[in-house]
Amino acid sequence: MLNGAHALVQTLIDSGVDTVFSNPGTSEMHFVAALDSAPQMRAVLTLFEGVASGAADGYARMTDRPAATLLHLGPGLGNALANLHNARKAGVPIVNIVGDHATTHAPYDAQLQSDIETVARNVSSWVRTSQATDKVSDDTAEAVAVARGMPRQISTLILPADVSWGHVGAAAAPPLPVPVAQPPEHATVAQIAAILSAHTNTAFLLGGRALLEPGLLAAAQIAQSCGAKLLAEVFPTRIQRGAGLPEVERLAYFAEFASTQLAGIDNLILVGARAPVSFFAYPGKKSDLVPEGCQVHTLAGPSHDPVQCLSELAEHLAATGIVPNLAPAHRPARPRGKLTADTICQAVGAVLPNNAIISDEAQTSGVMLPAMTAGAPRHDVLTLTGGAIGQGLPVAIGAAVACPDRPVLALQADGSAMYTIQSLWTMAREKLDVTVVLVNNQSYSILNVELQRVGAGAGGPKAKALLDLTHPNLDFVHLGRGMGVPSKRVDTAEELCTALEEAFTRPGPHLIEAVIPPAFSGLKLKALPYAMSALNKMPAPLAKAVKRRLAP
Amino acid sequence: MLNGAHALVQTLIDSGVDTVFSNPGTSEMHFVAALDSAPQMRAVLTLFEGVASGAADGYARMTDRPAATLLHLGPGLGNALANLHNARKAGVPIVNIVGDHATTHAPYDAQLQSDIETVARNVSSWVRTSQATDKVSDDTAEAVAVARGMPRQISTLILPADVSWGHVGAAAAPPLPVPVAQPPEHATVAQIAAILSAHTNTAFLLGGRALLEPGLLAAAQIAQSCGAKLLAEVFPTRIQRGAGLPEVERLAYFAEFASTQLAGIDNLILVGARAPVSFFAYPGKKSDLVPEGCQVHTLAGPSHDPVQCLSELAEHLAATGIVPNLAPAHRPARPRGKLTADTICQAVGAVLPNNAIISDEAQTSGVMLPAMTAGAPRHDVLTLTGGAIGQGLPVAIGAAVACPDRPVLALQADGSAMYTIQSLWTMAREKLDVTVVLVNNQSYSILNVELQRVGAGAGGPKAKALLDLTHPNLDFVHLGRGMGVPSKRVDTAEELCTALEEAFTRPGPHLIEAVIPPAFSGLKLKALPYAMSALNKMPAPLAKAVKRRLAP
Repeated sequence: MLNGAHALVQTLIDSGVDTVFSNPGTSEMHFVAALDSAPQMRAVLTLFEGVASGAADGYARMTDRPAATLLHLGPGLGNALANLHNARKAGVPIVNIVGDHATTHAPYDAQLQSDIETVARNVSSWVRTSQATDKVSDDTAEAVAVARGMPRQISTLILPADVSWGHVGAAAAPPLPVPVAQPPEHATVAQIAAILSAHTNTAFLLGGRALLEPGLLAAAQIAQSCGAKLLAEVFPTRIQRGAGLPEVERLAYFAEFASTQLAGIDNLILVGARAPVSFFAYPGKKSDLVPEGCQVHTLAGPSHDPVQCLSELAEHLAATGIVPNLAPAHRPARPRGKLTADTICQAVGAVLPNNAIISDEAQTSGVMLPAMTAGAPRHDVLTLTGGAIGQGLPVAIGAAVACPDRPVLALQADGSAMYTIQSLWTMAREKLDVTVVLVNNQSYSILNVELQRVGAGAGGPKAKALLDLTHPNLDFVHLGRGMGVPSKRVDTAEELCTALEEAFTRPGPHLIEAVIPPAFSGLKLKALPYAMSALNKMPAPLAKAVKRRLAP
Repeated sequence: MLNGAHALVQTLIDSGVDTVFSNPGTSEMHFVAALDSAPQMRAVLTLFEGVASGAADGYARMTDRPAATLLHLGPGLGNALANLHNARKAGVPIVNIVGDHATTHAPYDAQLQSDIETVARNVSSWVRTSQATDKVSDDTAEAVAVARGMPRQISTLILPADVSWGHVGAAAAPPLPVPVAQPPEHATVAQIAAILSAHTNTAFLLGGRALLEPGLLAAAQIAQSCGAKLLAEVFPTRIQRGAGLPEVERLAYFAEFASTQLAGIDNLILVGARAPVSFFAYPGKKSDLVPEGCQVHTLAGPSHDPVQCLSELAEHLAATGIVPNLAPAHRPARPRGKLTADTICQAVGAVLPNNAIISDEAQTSGVMLPAMTAGAPRHDVLTLTGGAIGQGLPVAIGAAVACPDRPVLALQADGSAMYTIQSLWTMAREKLDVTVVLVNNQSYSILNVELQRVGAGAGGPKAKALLDLTHPNLDFVHLGRGMGVPSKRVDTAEELCTALEEAFTRPGPHLIEAVIPPAFSGLKLKALPYAMSALNKMPAPLAKAVKRRLAP
């Protein structure tokens, strides 16, 4: 006898959702039981809902298709919220299935009762509590169609237990058509073409799917045809880069440096990106990073396909025949000696395998990553789109589930790792080819500099203790082994290179802990420009100097 | 020069809030900096916001005063939500301070922007975004007064960064008076006295602060004077028990058994508790556990002081002179041989030190705890009030911070532990006297039985894999050491007793891992009555049989 849970699972499958990142409880038991009659559905167990939601995000970044999450009432959704926030800001599709008390049980306000819909709206464009078993299939089809639409969105379907266990007679509803992208706006394309033809000081700010190969190639052709600058948003959902792909400069995290990158631009053209703003506000500093007098134009908004828009613009400019400049193959030398944030990034550049996926939550320790991997074999980089830390390890899980034939590198800072450290267990359970480089600088390094940047001074002993991760030191080799991941500590750059190569060639997850000095502990603000100029491979003389220093 | 953050911290201190469980980010840096000029404020760093909120809950349970939490924007609040849900259901006071973007920055919808107020309302009775620096002190005083009122509540004060860094001239606002409890309703007291005098089949359901010594003593006098039954709510916020205190039977988690406990009762009198309902709904089973024909009376509602109400009733019944029956001192024998859920609880009963605090999130492994500790030296038990797992270790932190002179025992199940495993680091950082007994039965044991109870069958291989915590096994000794907590595994009941005694006598945290077979894996539903009858020390012949079986 089929029940609501069977109908739900079958409709997910029919609609193209074949993976569910799960953390179920009693109210989800019928969904769990239904999985055994659905061989097409892969169910991945996580030990914490934030891992499930982050994994669904990583999966969607790599496939452009939603995975489902299976969450336990309001508290389960709460635990998933931070990484759903990151996914929302990433503009990726996810379908959350949140179990709820039976509709007949809700009025009694039992222990786990809470207002799920309101919390769901914080991160979801579409929220519905399925009210009857014979509606579950239609509701599910709609949830998936909305998620897969343009823009991609997060849908949350709340499933009361009695709706799940009730019997259904009919087969699952057919999948709904996925809304298509809005076509390019010809007048806007023509207007932007005219601006470009006038050879003003113009830059493109690329975001979303414009940062994948087709978009990058079209944008590079356009940029070359008229001397425009290409910029990428500060935290891309997914950017393809490396040898053989156009190089695009990423906007810097620190507003001071982003302003330098944007200085002098008269026309800024947005392609799947939003107008640049400071990540945080600082006393006396502007939030809006668009330079005074600069005109902002939107070539591709959230409902457009950025590649369609770029292609139409390239045709308009007769730029489609241009052979764009591509990054040459070039690896940094294998680093030697002391482990530092810089030599760790250099090691990654030296040994990164072909077609890798990098989940980058290295924070201050990843400053040199873009420079060091610019000429590495082509790879994808997934970044912290919403600023809610604890995203790197779960996203690596999702990417590895989505792309079982590609090596995944999680370059992961210590403080952020601890938010969703349970991820390691799922990597082991699913035997995922994820190499975690756990960069342990024993502090919330970024906060040492933010403390100064917000004008709060250098901090007294109590303040400093809240930014410090010593007493006791975290030992990630123990943590990895505790969750079944082969783990080792490396003490030199040479050892790191060897450990990386071993990890990339052996199946299953590996954790490599690299203990380094904090990047910004005690750093004077005036020394920042050196460190930060490298952050996004700024093409300034400074960046060259940094490269020279690190070359063999 | 004083700023908004200074005013906030000073007002918290003046209002009686002297502890903040923190997980700050950039938007909270002025609060962090202000701590160094506030020696009266203790700041405890946690590595995840769910630890901070659970610790604030544990602190409030033991002190009846709020601690503050310091959380980073919407995602930080999201991470804290599950344990704030438990705290809300526990009816304890907490003051959340949530940093937000500067008011001038909010319109730009930067990466970390989200709707904080809406999420806060899910768990808070009082939510305010402080709009101006010169209002911060008044807002803070109000937040604390609401939290400390009757009923105790959760307040959430959202603090935009510019409100925090703006300058203030005036001193902090004076604390506001704390709302007092509503006086007992004399007519209701008289009516209940009449019912009791008629010697019907009457039971009291005690909850909240009625389960502390003064309430228990008054309730025991009343019960003895007229032959009423005393019951405690299924998941007490804090219950005082052990030798020298009245024994109260806790309602069972499983509705089937709670119904047995309530059968035949004609009048149910609520004292700080709500009318009993099933934890979850099950097909064909009632949610409302009040027996047919039973009258429900509220002696003390959420706004009353339950002890005042009980005392007035005792006086009415001329019961104040009665010497109530108290639990005699009696420990079970030290267990020998194999570790099981039962021998673990027996070991706790055998060696529990005087005046201990037990944070009980042992789930199915804690079934025998009430029976085994009924005659142990007096102690407090803190339980999972809201059903959102991951509460036990954080609550143990809060209890240990609140009561530095008392030994804290966290009896903790494996699956639940992993939700907030980061707690171990804070125990080490703060050198808290917490002994964690990590009961590792390598499964979400309760879900194996819930799968059957909701009528979803025994589960196929995919379903069972989602309830199973092997492949790989979790190794909590490694996890504990990874976070700086001295950790060991015990293999026999004798070793457990010795390890417990050592841990209780040595300062700082200790983790003892006990690997046992899953309680309910493969268990037939019909075998449940035996296991469950013991859950809440039911005074049935079965419970006696269980005790006999476990006696030396």
